[in-house]
Amino acid sequence: MRILVINPNTTGSMTEAIGVAARQYALPSTEVECVSAPWGPRSIEGHFEEVLAAAATVEVVAANRKDFDAFVIACYGDPGLFAAREIADVPVLGIAEASMLTACTLAHRFSVVTVIPRIVPMLHDLVRRYGMESRCASIRSSGLGVLELDEDPARAVEEIVAQAQMAIDGDGAEAIALGCAGMGPLDKTVQGRLGVPVIDGVAAAVKLCEALTGYGVSTSKVAAFKSPEEKELIGVAAALQEVTAR
Amino acid sequence: MRILVINPNTTGSMTEAIGVAARQYALPSTEVECVSAPWGPRSIEGHFEEVLAAAATVEVVAANRKDFDAFVIACYGDPGLFAAREIADVPVLGIAEASMLTACTLAHRFSVVTVIPRIVPMLHDLVRRYGMESRCASIRSSGLGVLELDEDPARAVEEIVAQAQMAIDGDGAEAIALGCAGMGPLDKTVQGRLGVPVIDGVAAAVKLCEALTGYGVSTSKVAAFKSPEEKELIGVAAALQEVTAR
Amino acid sequence: MRILVINPNTTGSMTEAIGVAARQYALPSTEVECVSAPWGPRSIEGHFEEVLAAAATVEVVAANRKDFDAFVIACYGDPGLFAAREIADVPVLGIAEASMLTACTLAHRFSVVTVIPRIVPMLHDLVRRYGMESRCASIRSSGLGVLELDEDPARAVEEIVAQAQMAIDGDGAEAIALGCAGMGPLDKTVQGRLGVPVIDGVAAAVKLCEALTGYGVSTSKVAAFKSPEEKELIGVAAALQEVTAR
Amino acid sequence: MRILVINPNTTGSMTEAIGVAARQYALPSTEVECVSAPWGPRSIEGHFEEVLAAAATVEVVAANRKDFDAFVIACYGDPGLFAAREIADVPVLGIAEASMLTACTLAHRFSVVTVIPRIVPMLHDLVRRYGMESRCASIRSSGLGVLELDEDPARAVEEIVAQAQMAIDGDGAEAIALGCAGMGPLDKTVQGRLGVPVIDGVAAAVKLCEALTGYGVSTSKVAAFKSPEEKELIGVAAALQEVTAR
Amino acid sequence: MRILVINPNTTGSMTEAIGVAARQYALPSTEVECVSAPWGPRSIEGHFEEVLAAAATVEVVAANRKDFDAFVIACYGDPGLFAAREIADVPVLGIAEASMLTACTLAHRFSVVTVIPRIVPMLHDLVRRYGMESRCASIRSSGLGVLELDEDPARAVEEIVAQAQMAIDGDGAEAIALGCAGMGPLDKTVQGRLGVPVIDGVAAAVKLCEALTGYGVSTSKVAAFKSPEEKELIGVAAALQEVTAR
Amino acid sequence: MRILVINPNTTGSMTEAIGVAARQYALPSTEVECVSAPWGPRSIEGHFEEVLAAAATVEVVAANRKDFDAFVIACYGDPGLFAAREIADVPVLGIAEASMLTACTLAHRFSVVTVIPRIVPMLHDLVRRYGMESRCASIRSSGLGVLELDEDPARAVEEIVAQAQMAIDGDGAEAIALGCAGMGPLDKTVQGRLGVPVIDGVAAAVKLCEALTGYGVSTSKVAAFKSPEEKELIGVAAALQEVTAR
Repeated sequence: MRILVINPNTTGSMTEAIGVAARQYALPSTEVECVSAPWGPRSIEGHFEEVLAAAATVEVVAANRKDFDAFVIACYGDPGLFAAREIADVPVLGIAEASMLTACTLAHRFSVVTVIPRIVPMLHDLVRRYGMESRCASIRSSGLGVLELDEDPARAVEEIVAQAQMAIDGDGAEAIALGCAGMGPLDKTVQGRLGVPVIDGVAAAVKLCEALTGYGVSTSKVAAFKSPEEKELIGVAAALQEVTAR
Repeated sequence: MRILVINPNTTGSMTEAIGVAARQYALPSTEVECVSAPWGPRSIEGHFEEVLAAAATVEVVAANRKDFDAFVIACYGDPGLFAAREIADVPVLGIAEASMLTACTLAHRFSVVTVIPRIVPMLHDLVRRYGMESRCASIRSSGLGVLELDEDPARAVEEIVAQAQMAIDGDGAEAIALGCAGMGPLDKTVQGRLGVPVIDGVAAAVKLCEALTGYGVSTSKVAAFKSPEEKELIGVAAALQEVTAR
Repeated sequence: MRILVINPNTTGSMTEAIGVAARQYALPSTEVECVSAPWGPRSIEGHFEEVLAAAATVEVVAANRKDFDAFVIACYGDPGLFAAREIADVPVLGIAEASMLTACTLAHRFSVVTVIPRIVPMLHDLVRRYGMESRCASIRSSGLGVLELDEDPARAVEEIVAQAQMAIDGDGAEAIALGCAGMGPLDKTVQGRLGVPVIDGVAAAVKLCEALTGYGVSTSKVAAFKSPEEKELIGVAAALQEVTAR
Repeated sequence: MRILVINPNTTGSMTEAIGVAARQYALPSTEVECVSAPWGPRSIEGHFEEVLAAAATVEVVAANRKDFDAFVIACYGDPGLFAAREIADVPVLGIAEASMLTACTLAHRFSVVTVIPRIVPMLHDLVRRYGMESRCASIRSSGLGVLELDEDPARAVEEIVAQAQMAIDGDGAEAIALGCAGMGPLDKTVQGRLGVPVIDGVAAAVKLCEALTGYGVSTSKVAAFKSPEEKELIGVAAALQEVTAR
Repeated sequence: MRILVINPNTTGSMTEAIGVAARQYALPSTEVECVSAPWGPRSIEGHFEEVLAAAATVEVVAANRKDFDAFVIACYGDPGLFAAREIADVPVLGIAEASMLTACTLAHRFSVVTVIPRIVPMLHDLVRRYGMESRCASIRSSGLGVLELDEDPARAVEEIVAQAQMAIDGDGAEAIALGCAGMGPLDKTVQGRLGVPVIDGVAAAVKLCEALTGYGVSTSKVAAFKSPEEKELIGVAAALQEVTAR
Repeated sequence: MRILVINPNTTGSMTEAIGVAARQYALPSTEVECVSAPWGPRSIEGHFEEVLAAAATVEVVAANRKDFDAFVIACYGDPGLFAAREIADVPVLGIAEASMLTACTLAHRFSVVTVIPRIVPMLHDLVRRYGMESRCASIRSSGLGVLELDEDPARAVEEIVAQAQMAIDGDGAEAIALGCAGMGPLDKTVQGRLGVPVIDGVAAAVKLCEALTGYGVSTSKVAAFKSPEEKELIGVAAALQEVTAR
């Protein structure tokens, strides 16, 4: 099968790192392609940037919707996820969602360790959107910016481990979801330090895509994720235009 | 004070109708300007269209953020609301949020009567986002498309009244929120038929903007709605660019 | 419009201070009258006192129900609020409810800073009654008695700021609701210290009354707040008697 | 032990019927006294009447607080319950609370069948206050007024059985709580018709009082139900005055 | 009446201590018999042991189901409780459930102080199963093993008091449920130290059995606790076999 | 990898059908073995039978815990799941949990269609245990007994489709989880009829086991699923004995 992993931001080096993580645990028969958003913020650290990234991500899905067997949105806010489900007929996974669902198979409660503090309320909303309130022990900020993760991975590991350990000792967490695609490559290092399952949403999403495709199920198109209505769109990219044309 | 009411879709006749509704209950000292999204879908009836509309709406807010005392986003999905709060220093109200909060002052529980069925799960998510689960009796679809409201208002009233009456009789609703900006002009007609408060989010949002400004409070900027980080944005409109520049 | 603000306790100096706060942000066209409860406790700091204050408050509303365009109940337990909605045809706002709904337009989550510790479980119940569990970050006690607020406002500010800052730093609060009518006059001072919106429920309630009246909506009378049944009342004040007579 | 059962309304025939029900299942060693409210409504069917009844009930508890081993408040809104807990050192049970807790020992979910429709939202609030949302299958109105129960018990049984059967068949109820003290005497008749446990809160409360006293535990006085603060009360009955005097 | 109290583990000395506690507050007319599980773990400190204990407990109930007026399952995980309700026609109480329901009559919120830390997530699930989330302030581990309680009761009291005090001071607890049958005999000592109600589930369950029997109600058999279907069981004890035979 | 799929009941023909379903969507490199419970009920349709089945299932896991890379418990009550997680070091999936988590990736809300009505409250508890309340639209009974599914599959399809269609049309379901392992072989037939994703938990669990193993994560052993304490077990099978021996 062919999976398109979309990095919703425009930092190419991060896209490359995500691609490596995505391929690392994929089946031999799975082909993973990884692209950046064609436009938008260098990193996604707030609602404003997320709105832009969602639009850019949806554009990528629209342009490729006939060419892949599954899509992964590789930013921990899952920007554009529900929109992408409307326009693709194949499974679309967000890495936040994938990491949380995976954590539920391994742990009574999980915590998310994410980047800067302003992301915490955003993830609270996401946890509620997915109905994970009773499974999520806490959401903790490592204090790191998205682009700092790459610059000093050793420090990143220390900050993530420190918060994760507090989540385990104080909040009742039994597994840790890494709350940023940029943290993904650190998963096994952090897991080695903590002794609990540590989940990179990118890897989790790729494995779930394989599972869904292997079982032969895809997004329900009867209500929330129904294909868009036939409709005129003004001043948008051609790929988007086609989505609502008949 | 000056309020900018943004219609997140690109149908000018709907923008005009929203403008009339917005001005109708405004204070004499309130100046209301009303604009359409500069690009995007003719109406917003799904997640895909909402993602585009959110980006277009945020562009409008960015371009005008220094020039108004408050903003109203006049689409019942509140597209781009949290992003707009990040980039504006003045209050920003969404009409879904405004109608629900207003309903809470008048009724034990309220129902929302909206357009086509696919909107229902979207509004369930919105109700959860705002923490209104225990106050919202039900969300009901009138079966009408957004642009049909304008074409046959008499039929629209009948369909809305029918669903609203079922909400009152069967679901425990005591007030009705009109779940589409295009339904706003029908508020008093529907209210006259039902005998319970009927709330147009546009009017409610304008009145709340006046209330917040009158009391001298605005959006909290310490966490969820902090101003965007300083950051490079690739390939976006100039107004957006400026938001993250220093 | 004419608003009657009722102080449910019997401390006249507090009624005066509440009146000043209520008028401060009212529209020029709004006339605010402020009265104390005719009997009952000097301050309301528990369920026992609240039961008495509710009965006294309802007596005031009953006696004035034809003479005002809106009522505000100015005690942070909102004593008698739902009963008052039954007997008045015009909007009735409680200051706890008004402060929480207002906070929701400005912040992802808010905290309440209130008086002595025994009030905390009472406010937990109120937050649940209004369905605000997911929007209320915490309820914190300043340790101050209601009547102490007036005696040493400078100390009151310090205690409130200290608890509010802990709410912001530790609980995820982004706005602060002042959990006692007696704290209202300190709102802007506390806001200046904290840098987040600080909400006095009295001011918030007055502004919401203006908004509701301006939009032409009032309490739903079909279920929870239906007018009282025709019924004999034994041994009660004449104003109450009339409410259930036909 | 001696239990004072308080009928919060002023209808003496109802007080007598409650007294019979209260004594029927009491231990031989339990002495039950039953009194009406000294003033207030003939029946309690709304928030307004409940506020008055709560004040009258609290007056009865205050006047008798040293003379009984437990108190039962025999109206299905539990008027004044938390206030009574503050001023008594012995257990105080409300019949709504008692019936719900008892139902939890017998059934996965229970429904409440109550009087006229306007009571339904009041009981929704009570269910939430007690945290019983996931145990309460539904709240259904029999359409009967409180004082009608006594006038035509045969019809009352039919109406209660009809709603209860719908609760069992359609809502998932496995036990029925009778949502009015006046329905209590019908408990075994209704139970015989339905084949599921039917609970009169008066009987349930008496048995719980005996259980608590037998085990030697009483209301916690450290926070929510702490004794009232020392305080001046203006213009209230002497018994109330004493409660806050030192 | 005759109550069978079942200690689901196989430690006879603990069974004896439970028997003493069970009889201490029983009515003179109540006969209490107390038995150990016939097989299984010495103590129950995890899901694995609970599964075995549940099966052994159910065996005891099956063998005695015609011979007692009520059953109490005396382990704070309530192992086999719902199964026992299916096979007995008389009331069956678990001690966790009994302690929580009793606490609700005495306190706004309660905390559970239990044994080793791994029990905490198990009790979180139990609290959710019983719908007690909004009444349970916290679940705290004393760090003690089940069988250590008996060995050094003085130390046990200290550890329990320490955690309970933190629950009262920090978590908002107003009553304490002792989260292990082995802690029961310490109830009054701990209560004396804390000044809040302390509840041994064994005593609470015995009193509730008396209350239910005294009122003449028993488990609803229409859905969740319906008698088992007629069915072949392979390789099980004769008493179990009979349960599903006709 | 090698997966042991355990049918917790003792009906061999059902075990065979489950085995076929389990192998159908497995990777070529996955070896699936399928066994029945060594003792216990012919089918599992209540709490009593579930308690026995849980003990038998745990015995199978204990006896095989070193010999497989993952375990699947193939009964829709997930009997013994958490106990199995304690005693195995490899992933253990229950089919209820697996079907619900899988449904979350495909649909806004899902419904479960199960066997006889008495199972419905059991599944409500399971949905709460897994925190799926806001994702589960409804639980519906097909009225079929477990062993009837096999006898008349054509009728089973009709009954399942009828309930599923009501879930889609009336409850807001967008995907259907088949609420019994015996329904698994009908998944694609039912999906063809409904036009929404239909999920057999057995297939879903096998695919999730492959995903977890492929990513290299397993059950967290720090709290809820910690290995059992060292402890004497009386009168149990040798395989169980070993689990708690050191």
